[in-house]
Amino acid sequence: MAVGGVIVGGGAPIAVQSMTTTDTRDPSATLEQIRRLADAGCEIVRVAVPGSDALDGLQAICAQSPLPVVADIHFDHRLAIEAARRGAAKLRINPGNIGSMDRVDAVIEAAGEAGIPIRIGVNAGSLAAEYHDRDWPLFEKLAASAVKFCEHFTSRGFEDIVVSAKASSVVPTIEAYRLLSARLPYPLHIGVTEAGTAFTGTIKSSVGIGVLLAEGIGDTLRVSLTAPPEEEVRVAWEVLASLDIRRRGPELISCPTCGRCQVDLVPIAEEVQRRLSTLATPVKVAVMGCVVNGPGEAREADVGVAAGRGTGLLFRRGVPVRKVPESEIVDALFEEIDTLT
Amino acid sequence: MAVGGVIVGGGAPIAVQSMTTTDTRDPSATLEQIRRLADAGCEIVRVAVPGSDALDGLQAICAQSPLPVVADIHFDHRLAIEAARRGAAKLRINPGNIGSMDRVDAVIEAAGEAGIPIRIGVNAGSLAAEYHDRDWPLFEKLAASAVKFCEHFTSRGFEDIVVSAKASSVVPTIEAYRLLSARLPYPLHIGVTEAGTAFTGTIKSSVGIGVLLAEGIGDTLRVSLTAPPEEEVRVAWEVLASLDIRRRGPELISCPTCGRCQVDLVPIAEEVQRRLSTLATPVKVAVMGCVVNGPGEAREADVGVAAGRGTGLLFRRGVPVRKVPESEIVDALFEEIDTLT
Repeated sequence: MAVGGVIVGGGAPIAVQSMTTTDTRDPSATLEQIRRLADAGCEIVRVAVPGSDALDGLQAICAQSPLPVVADIHFDHRLAIEAARRGAAKLRINPGNIGSMDRVDAVIEAAGEAGIPIRIGVNAGSLAAEYHDRDWPLFEKLAASAVKFCEHFTSRGFEDIVVSAKASSVVPTIEAYRLLSARLPYPLHIGVTEAGTAFTGTIKSSVGIGVLLAEGIGDTLRVSLTAPPEEEVRVAWEVLASLDIRRRGPELISCPTCGRCQVDLVPIAEEVQRRLSTLATPVKVAVMGCVVNGPGEAREADVGVAAGRGTGLLFRRGVPVRKVPESEIVDALFEEIDTLT
Repeated sequence: MAVGGVIVGGGAPIAVQSMTTTDTRDPSATLEQIRRLADAGCEIVRVAVPGSDALDGLQAICAQSPLPVVADIHFDHRLAIEAARRGAAKLRINPGNIGSMDRVDAVIEAAGEAGIPIRIGVNAGSLAAEYHDRDWPLFEKLAASAVKFCEHFTSRGFEDIVVSAKASSVVPTIEAYRLLSARLPYPLHIGVTEAGTAFTGTIKSSVGIGVLLAEGIGDTLRVSLTAPPEEEVRVAWEVLASLDIRRRGPELISCPTCGRCQVDLVPIAEEVQRRLSTLATPVKVAVMGCVVNGPGEAREADVGVAAGRGTGLLFRRGVPVRKVPESEIVDALFEEIDTLT
């Protein structure tokens, strides 16, 4: 399945998505945010299309966006049809809130004509009415609703589908995706919806998405945070990197510090992290506070430092190279990194 | 197994640990940090014992700490023996860096006399020398080393053991613990070691610990961050809460905002999060930016708000109760929360 130039599913790299928070009626603000998202590593971007007055903006955005644009539409099928005609690379609808299956069929037809896929995006907060009163666990409702919509789409001859079924709680989200993965042949868009603020949402998303990815479930992902969307992209990449699935830029190992640490490690690690964030090379850097695990970890890294009393012993590719005073640790680390790249 | 008054393993609640970053020779600073950790929800605290000059401090800390104190010792078995005599509730050693098995045996004997458990803490950064050159994957080395030490301990008649085998990468950590869980009957202390700064470390820990907990692996946990240790405890609780394993205080659902949002939601959600952090009640609060998923999520929460154009519609236990202007949303939410508690 292709979203613009990005392949999703079938073993393609798991694509990172996010969603703009700007007003879609303001194409220049939205495009500026999309460019920031692209710089952060976003690969597919979604924009809300809340009303017909946003369609001109959507068209301008689709024409100029460096990333494939997914039009996110609720309630009004006419907006989805127009979005398909105006250049959206994919539609996202929740068929349960489009009003009737006839209207859904009109959207399917428009997507087919435009040659673009549709995400069937089921969400615990907007489940189809028929499930409201059923005495099923939430994950069963989510999965059953998504599967039923897929069956409808395929009965119309449309199989260019991505599926999601998100809850704001991690456990039903995981369980719903396990069912979808077992029951459906389509690529899955994974994530925990409305996960919360940067702190809570990062943890809920990391756990939920991490558990699914570790089970081999998920073809594209979005981290949902009540925070600037670039932050969603940063978290998404860290989750992928943590499981050695995809990596973007350098990796930093740093110790938690303890009563053994004889340098002020937190600002050193934060400064190294800050400076590494500007590098695109996938170098592995270790910043360690003492001699217990320091030399071992520093040895495994491309470049490492194991701190001693007010000093740091630098390692390059496993070999100790020199000792520097605490104040020079960060600069010396980056000198060593420069010699590698 | 008991660490002071905290039961670990055998189905007991998964205990949250952290480690002090203060100098153990300074009992008052260390005790102050321990009290802050206890307030944050830490249940077992570890302190480094880097040398014999830290033993008096350790003794004072053990005597006055509100939490069971684990003495963390490397290299010098005499420190471990003394720590057992001076009131530590548990010892943590990596038998691989104690020097010889005779010395390990002396530690075992001291722990037995004191009636306290030992954590066999194997770590990728300080693997026993015999594994350095083996052509095994890291997780196999970690697990094999831990299992071999356990066999030694049991051959000495000592079974009051907790086991950990941490790497700074998530995948070998997960794989090592899966092996330990299959091979050993002892409680497991889980975590990703030297996970990094608050941002990266939170994600790596959430993914690694989350995957293990989702598989039913882990009896106590520590999140390792290059950040203040209270932060480790906050992350640990969020991970446990995300999987519905244990919860401390309220839960906040909040949406990521998008082009549909007609109020400035990020500061509202952050303010709600901040004010919720002072509550101990496990209330579920939803802060939602629009009418797509807003009413659905707000209805599932104990108290919720679904924002519209410059206003918020408040829900209490699923029932819409009133509409307030944007500026009054936070106060109104907390008034509703007060009516519940």
